[in-house]
Amino acid sequence: MTDASRVEPGSIGELTTPALVVDLAAFDRNVAAMAEALPGPALRPHVKAFKSTALAARLADAGHHRFCAATIRELEGMVAAGLTEDLLLANEVVDYRRLGRLADGGASITVAVDSPETVAAAAGGGVSQALIDVNVGLPRCGCAVADAGRLAEAARAAGLEVRGVMGYEGHLMMVDDLDEKRAKVEKSMGWLLEAHEAVGGDIVSAGGTGTYAVNTWANEIQAGSYCLMDTQYDTLGLPFEMALSVVASVISVNARGWFVVDAGLKAFGMDHGNPTSLRGEVMFCSDEHTTIKPDDLGMPAVGERIAMLPAHVDPTVAKHPQFWVTGGEAGGDLTARPVVDRWEVDLLHW
Amino acid sequence: MTDASRVEPGSIGELTTPALVVDLAAFDRNVAAMAEALPGPALRPHVKAFKSTALAARLADAGHHRFCAATIRELEGMVAAGLTEDLLLANEVVDYRRLGRLADGGASITVAVDSPETVAAAAGGGVSQALIDVNVGLPRCGCAVADAGRLAEAARAAGLEVRGVMGYEGHLMMVDDLDEKRAKVEKSMGWLLEAHEAVGGDIVSAGGTGTYAVNTWANEIQAGSYCLMDTQYDTLGLPFEMALSVVASVISVNARGWFVVDAGLKAFGMDHGNPTSLRGEVMFCSDEHTTIKPDDLGMPAVGERIAMLPAHVDPTVAKHPQFWVTGGEAGGDLTARPVVDRWEVDLLHW
Repeated sequence: MTDASRVEPGSIGELTTPALVVDLAAFDRNVAAMAEALPGPALRPHVKAFKSTALAARLADAGHHRFCAATIRELEGMVAAGLTEDLLLANEVVDYRRLGRLADGGASITVAVDSPETVAAAAGGGVSQALIDVNVGLPRCGCAVADAGRLAEAARAAGLEVRGVMGYEGHLMMVDDLDEKRAKVEKSMGWLLEAHEAVGGDIVSAGGTGTYAVNTWANEIQAGSYCLMDTQYDTLGLPFEMALSVVASVISVNARGWFVVDAGLKAFGMDHGNPTSLRGEVMFCSDEHTTIKPDDLGMPAVGERIAMLPAHVDPTVAKHPQFWVTGGEAGGDLTARPVVDRWEVDLLHW
Repeated sequence: MTDASRVEPGSIGELTTPALVVDLAAFDRNVAAMAEALPGPALRPHVKAFKSTALAARLADAGHHRFCAATIRELEGMVAAGLTEDLLLANEVVDYRRLGRLADGGASITVAVDSPETVAAAAGGGVSQALIDVNVGLPRCGCAVADAGRLAEAARAAGLEVRGVMGYEGHLMMVDDLDEKRAKVEKSMGWLLEAHEAVGGDIVSAGGTGTYAVNTWANEIQAGSYCLMDTQYDTLGLPFEMALSVVASVISVNARGWFVVDAGLKAFGMDHGNPTSLRGEVMFCSDEHTTIKPDDLGMPAVGERIAMLPAHVDPTVAKHPQFWVTGGEAGGDLTARPVVDRWEVDLLHW
């Protein structure tokens, strides 16, 4: 989507807005903190959070070589980028043809299955490895614990290698109290371990950014949001910083007490509510605008650039063609901050 | 974003899901109904609602040759597609360089201005025509009525031809009662006409899908959602039908009373709430899933395709690379409906 003929911007002030911006120092600290907590294969980074093979390559450099994804398109992109060591499609799919083409390239592809139909899709498509996806309390995908063993048998009978189990305790990500969260995750993972007994295999895959620190029952954690973060995860007191913002331009100011920037519904994931402005209170978002009541810093000038913080990282990233990566430290003149890299969001759509 | 090597699908059942689908018969009826109400230049279709030059070309075929847009990227795409007769950037922008490149190509470009800074951007960039954007009650862009004449003078002094005024009564789109809506729009347009007195020029541009029928004060209406519609506009009793859906595949069913499809937060604009399922009650959306409680039709099978209706058309379209256009009449077997065309969503991003 990017026009290659455009000169690469040298500073935030030269970017076309709205622009998705990564603070490289904060990103690197997030990656290092997670790599210390869950080194190497203990973390299976989830590419759905950032949809960029350039970003994924940085996580591989930090020691994580096994990735998971939510869509076939994401896996196709990871294969094309050579990040093929051990790829998990941590989701159910029924598209035989594209699954088969993925496996043909020689990448190591494992898919989640939770039904005879998804087993048939994997086997029919030519994928050779599977995890049994088990429902651990979130009303979404995953078979019943009691059905896991039988499904594993069916998968093996269909020619699939069953490498273990996965389950996603997504309903527990935002539990605030750490003791309560640990107790609930323990119960949830109890179901997964019970299923694992019946299924066999080496892998017990679960978790996310909200539970990575308390989920000691899974032997690999599927997390992706931690490296960029958003204002919702930022309420949890995790050892990760906000590394993502959307830089917008002020396009209108009104003496009656508001200003308007050129980033709106099409630049932010809105399911967790409005983005946060560092220059005032967000009143509402329109397609290509956000109206903001200025704080004590007063009214900005038309043309000024301000940073906005997304409430939900995954769907925000999915609205942009690229990350612009900024160096130096935050706090100074936003416009002057250098742009040191561009990471394409190359795993968009399906 | 589309892989040209893929065979064009011949039916809904062959599409990669989630897929944005237009019902051609319903779309054509919507376009015809609007063209009858507001023929030719009485409607200035707003491309922000559909972000597709292929769709815009159909509106040109229906007699509307003057378009408006919300971003420079949208205008660039319209120029590239040759839809250049009279293009209005109905929004404030401060990017001199790209404005200038637009005008260089010989297209007729008019931009909205509401401040000395946006006048300077237009004049500095080489655009030669402007509308004075007037605030008519929505707390967003637009100058005060009392400032409109002075701003027009400044624009003319900067070398711009001032063609008239625009204002967007966006806060009145969803007023339910028609008499109340007409009275409020009259008041709002009273301000715009007062500004027009001071500004001069031929154009009084305003309105949208929610007010097109009552706004008799503007001499051109900016509407785009009408041709595709969404579940929010569908509550207003307008003479337009739902022509847009997202077709999803069932990927998991659970005997405890829900099923899961492969379209979620990344496939739907979420700011007007959840999409509507034709097969049950939507429980919640995740990034790539929606969990649905089945209705009296019962549990669908894994692999089955179902249509979902978006709550907000504009940000939904902006999440997809293309429209798949289906022929025939609705009501039969969804999977078998023929795909008769593909309209690229070629005006994405900024």
